[in-house]
Formats: sequence, C-alpha cells, structure tokens
Amino acid sequence: MGRVTERRKVIRIRDGAVSTRPDTLVAEEPLEIRLNGKPLAITMRTPGDDFALAAGFLVSEGVLAAASDLQNIVYCAGATADGSNTYNVVDVRTAPGVVIPDITLERNVYTTSSCGLCGKASLDAVRTTARWPIADTPPVRLEPELLAGLPDRLRAAQRVFDRTGGLHAAALFSEDGELLDVREDVGRHNAVDKLVGRAVQSGGLPLSRTVLLVSGRASFELAQKAVMAGIPVLAAVSAPSSLAVDLAAETGLTLVGFLRGSSMNVYAGEDRIALRAAATQG
Amino acid sequence: MGRVTERRKVIRIRDGAVSTRPDTLVAEEPLEIRLNGKPLAITMRTPGDDFALAAGFLVSEGVLAAASDLQNIVYCAGATADGSNTYNVVDVRTAPGVVIPDITLERNVYTTSSCGLCGKASLDAVRTTARWPIADTPPVRLEPELLAGLPDRLRAAQRVFDRTGGLHAAALFSEDGELLDVREDVGRHNAVDKLVGRAVQSGGLPLSRTVLLVSGRASFELAQKAVMAGIPVLAAVSAPSSLAVDLAAETGLTLVGFLRGSSMNVYAGEDRIALRAAATQG
Repeated sequence: MGRVTERRKVIRIRDGAVSTRPDTLVAEEPLEIRLNGKPLAITMRTPGDDFALAAGFLVSEGVLAAASDLQNIVYCAGATADGSNTYNVVDVRTAPGVVIPDITLERNVYTTSSCGLCGKASLDAVRTTARWPIADTPPVRLEPELLAGLPDRLRAAQRVFDRTGGLHAAALFSEDGELLDVREDVGRHNAVDKLVGRAVQSGGLPLSRTVLLVSGRASFELAQKAVMAGIPVLAAVSAPSSLAVDLAAETGLTLVGFLRGSSMNVYAGEDRIALRAAATQG
Repeated sequence: MGRVTERRKVIRIRDGAVSTRPDTLVAEEPLEIRLNGKPLAITMRTPGDDFALAAGFLVSEGVLAAASDLQNIVYCAGATADGSNTYNVVDVRTAPGVVIPDITLERNVYTTSSCGLCGKASLDAVRTTARWPIADTPPVRLEPELLAGLPDRLRAAQRVFDRTGGLHAAALFSEDGELLDVREDVGRHNAVDKLVGRAVQSGGLPLSRTVLLVSGRASFELAQKAVMAGIPVLAAVSAPSSLAVDLAAETGLTLVGFLRGSSMNVYAGEDRIALRAAATQG
C-alpha cells in the first residue's frame, strides 16, 4: 500500500491569483494479470488490493466462482531486469481441475465464433459464461427510501476521494442497507473487481442478497460484472447505457440509474423495488 | 448513425411518486478494430464516427501519423453467420510501406521486453513510440481566462448528453479558444480517438496549436493520446492521475485539471499558461 496516492507540485489559479503548493493525486500504475503463468490482461489501476482485483477480474471472465477454484495468487518476483519486484505483475494459479474458458484478449468483451460482433453476441456470451443464475429466494425487496440513502453512505466511506477527487468508488450493501465493503480505484471496473475479488477469496459468492452501488455511470461492463458475481441489484448515480439495460433485462438483474436525492430511474427488474408502497406514499 | 441513442421504458420514482415513460439512453455496442485484416482490439463504444475512432486509436498506438499512412477503412461485410453486416467490425488498411510497430494486445498499455511493468515503462513506451515531439513554435500561450471559458463551450456543444446524461465528451479548441471539433461517446477514450481520427484522416496531425478538453478526469491513457497526436495542452474538468502528470512532465505536455469556474490547477507545462498576467490581475 502507500501508493494509493502520490504527491506532486501544483500551480493553483483562483480568480487570477496564482499559488504553488503540494497536491495529492490518485496513484495510477499498470497491473498485468497472469493466469497460471500466462499473461492475460493489463489494466491501469490504483495500487492496493491487487490480489482481489485479479481474482475479481477472473470472476467476471468466468474462470473463478469459488474460493476452492483458487490455488494461490502471487506477485511475480524478478519482473525487472535487475531482479527487483515492481508489484505490478500478479499470477493467479487455479486449483487442479478448474476448467479455463476461452478468454478473448481484450478484457470483458466476448466474440462469437461467427465474428458477428454485436450487442446480442455480448449478451449471449455473458449468459453462457455465468456460473449461476441471479437467484435470490425469496427475492430481495428494496424500499426506494433505502436505495435513496445509499449514495450518501458511499460518499461518507470514500476516504481517498476526499483528498484527490480522482477516484471512482463501488460499494456492496446488504439488502437492509448495511455497508458491507467499499473500494476505490482510478478505474470504475477495477473498484468492482476488487469488491468481487474479496468476496470470492472469502467464499462469499454468489452475492445473492446484495446491492452493488457505483459512482458514475452503469456500462455494459459493470452490469456484466454484477451478473457474473450473482448480484441481484446494480444501482448507479448516473446514467446506464442501452446495452447495460438490455443485459439487465435479459438476466433478471435489477438496474437503477440516476440515484440522486429521493429520485431514481428503474430500468429493469422492477419486481425487486417496492413500487406500490412508494406510490401510496407519493 | 441513428444508433447514438436508443429508447427504453423506464420507471421513474420521484419523492415516492411512480410513473412509467420512455427514456433516451446512450447506445453502447462493441467495435472490433482490425489492422490489415488482423483483429487488434475491441472497445465498447457509442456507434458513429467508427472509421475516425479506428484511425484515432491507431494514432495512439503509433501506427498512423498522416493521412498518407492510410489506404482505406471499411466495415467488414458478412461478419455474421447469415452474411449481414453488424457495422461493428472495421478493418483499417495501411498504405504500402507503413511499418507496423509491435502492439500489445491490451489497448493503450505497453510492456517492455524485460517485463518490468511499471509506470516508468509506460512512460518510456510513449516516448519511444511518439512520431513527433510536442513542438509548438512559438509556444502556445494561453490566458487562464480563455481556459476557464472552455468547459461552458464544451457543454453547449454536447447535444446527446442533454438527452441521456450518459456520455463523455472531448473537444478540440484552437489556441484562440475557437471550438474546432467535439465528439461524444460512452467511453472518454473513444471520444478522444474520434477527434484525433478525424484529424489524421484530414491531414491535420500533429495538432500542434490546439487544446484538448475532456469531461471528467485525466488518466494516463488520455495524456498518452494527447502526446501521440502532438497536442500541447490537455485540460480536464476533474482530477488527473499521478501517471498522467508524470507523462505530461516528461513529454512537455501542459496538463490542467479541476478546470471549473475561474479556477484551475496546472500540473505540468506551466510555461504555456500566462501566469504572470493572471497574478497581476488577482
């Protein structure tokens, strides 16, 4: 750790007044993820929770689903010419017998053998790769008021953002609105990978009775990560994309966007939101 | 075109009141970029300006630097089993004699042969791949007041964002503050690729006397794209990362962050900002 933020000199201009001072920036470094020794992906991330990031990434790719799928995760020593360790290369070793699916080289995007690359192919790939359906029995049922309170709780838990303004955050909440975990990263997908990775490492998948809240927008990639982790509800502070909504509708994921103040939009899976109760209160 | 936005049904909750209405979402679809027939990268993007996106991506990768490097760009027909075209696969064909550098499989991240993956290796790779130095002669010199006015002009030009709230934007301005071009996309890097791609297609590289403004944060990846296009000034509405600042300092890029109202932070290349003039006005 200790590399989550870095200090740099900055020239501040405020209404024409110029001053120089040290500033705290969010750290960004590349991380290479290897699977059983073979390079698989490189992501630009904020250092910290690297093993969880790698494990969560492999949950999204359909490689890992349980702690028992994992043999161990190590930093690759001697990764530089002089033999020192940059702590920017991790190798995930799977347990004997774990079947490695065919993973494309670009992270989080799937192609079909027919090369008919389109939104539908991406949806199909998630469906065929998912290790479990979204199966919360009895279904999670959330009051809108509970959802509305989550962004403030996320911001209260964001420690590094306060100092840098440069981090995305993702948080897991219980269905009762209890904050279970929060991660920050220069990349939103990394923050989600770190959450999911910590869960798979501790035997917590599928996350069947949780709500995933992300700062910013809900892309296809984030919806995919929620589905692959078995999370039934994805809520975003900002807008979703069309393909995120399509994936949610197809897989049964509840997708909430524009979660601000007492307002929100429900794009899919509205059966988990207590709409009638809300309407009678309106 | 016509796929930049899509309509979906949404359930709105406002202070407990529930209503259903159609909503406009930003479209997101995968795009596979092929180079001379060989698959190179897949990005999730907002359809539109796909040829420019592919060309700009290849500027960032050090493949293209001039319109004459480009033979043509085509959508791959028959990309699906039934022979129809998804318009999600483009092939960029380079002119005879163009040398293709060794491109890693993950977009925008470079590894060295020693595998010493770290921020420094990433910086080195950009330096060795760049086709020109940032060479604005005489140097671009910007009044802080001019910079302060750019975000409002970007927002005024963002047409799709107004309807969806789901798009990142990037704009090119002249050194006099004239808006030259603006692109929107679900991915910030795609918006920049589309700007740079349009420039390389029309013979406009290097963009030696321009300012690149991005909504949101300034990551290493965006700083890299500015440097590869020869852009001397990168300004962001939000925070930069440590590695973006390092790259700017090393290459001579002017990096401005937190550009809001009449305030901004200058992280590197302050020689292009008219600081003394600003101070006397303060």
